Amino acid sequence: MNEFKNETMKAILDRYSCRDFTGEPITKEQAGALAKAALAAPSAMNLQPWHIIVITDKALIDEYDAHAMAILKDQSGDAYKRMMDRGGKLFYNAPCLVVIAKDATDYATLDCGIATQNVALAAHSLGLASVICGMARIPLAGPKAEEWTKRLQIPDGYNFGMSVCVGIANTGKAPHELDNAKVTYI
Amino acid sequence: MNEFKNETMKAILDRYSCRDFTGEPITKEQAGALAKAALAAPSAMNLQPWHIIVITDKALIDEYDAHAMAILKDQSGDAYKRMMDRGGKLFYNAPCLVVIAKDATDYATLDCGIATQNVALAAHSLGLASVICGMARIPLAGPKAEEWTKRLQIPDGYNFGMSVCVGIANTGKAPHELDNAKVTYI
Repeated sequence: MNEFKNETMKAILDRYSCRDFTGEPITKEQAGALAKAALAAPSAMNLQPWHIIVITDKALIDEYDAHAMAILKDQSGDAYKRMMDRGGKLFYNAPCLVVIAKDATDYATLDCGIATQNVALAAHSLGLASVICGMARIPLAGPKAEEWTKRLQIPDGYNFGMSVCVGIANTGKAPHELDNAKVTYI
Repeated sequence: MNEFKNETMKAILDRYSCRDFTGEPITKEQAGALAKAALAAPSAMNLQPWHIIVITDKALIDEYDAHAMAILKDQSGDAYKRMMDRGGKLFYNAPCLVVIAKDATDYATLDCGIATQNVALAAHSLGLASVICGMARIPLAGPKAEEWTKRLQIPDGYNFGMSVCVGIANTGKAPHELDNAKVTYI
């Protein structure tokens, strides 16, 4: 699938969503690189409508994970069953959770997606695996929303945008198939 | 600024928003690589809520540009003045416009941002410059919206998500400054 020789194209094409991390910590330098990658993202009129929270406190991540799973269990929907089938951990034992908080400006959601992908690709380039995780938003709209917004240090005026779990892959997998039917050339 | 040796981190940190292209065409292989990069983007539940339109018909791009500028002129707002100050072309003479159309599902806007950044980074990795351009949406909400939706071959059920102008830089520039105040480590 990968006829491109350059490393960035390879990273783009080889990145996959990892759902099984070893749990080993990432280094401080790696955490710093993920943050830098997010900050380097382009944004509408360079407004940089985000705040990047890099969490490497594994005990905090695990507590947040367990609380999110408890909320999902109470909702008894498909998401809980899916996560239980996948091992019962929302963050798949990742030792690092990068939360991208966004402000309320018009293009913040799309810009947040741009920054998210920089984090995922930076992780891949550093030999780490990642998975983008929208469900990290669950506790921030749950019964302890205020407490967790504070503990994750989401600044006033910002809300959850997206998160990326990062760590060392315990089990890798192939990237998703490219769907060429989704391209038109003019 | 760039202490990372790997090429992907360098691409992430060195990419900048180009506002002056030579107009020379990109190759068919380069256009294909941009499309592949977009398709390789992760998306919520792998729904791939996009359709990628790679336009390398420069006459079409220029006509679309002129029409957008005419609409901006009629609105006589700040955007028209800004674009006139920058040379009077919305797409800065780029020979390729990648339009990422999105469907109406919940996470399409954020996922569209993810795909957008893959295109911008792929361009950089191929030695091309790029700028993400939201104003390409203007004619799709203007007096000839229906005509242009058809000419850009935006499929039924999809709307403009984002676009990326790609080409050879006539004038380069430094990437934006990283704002370390926008990071919290926990």
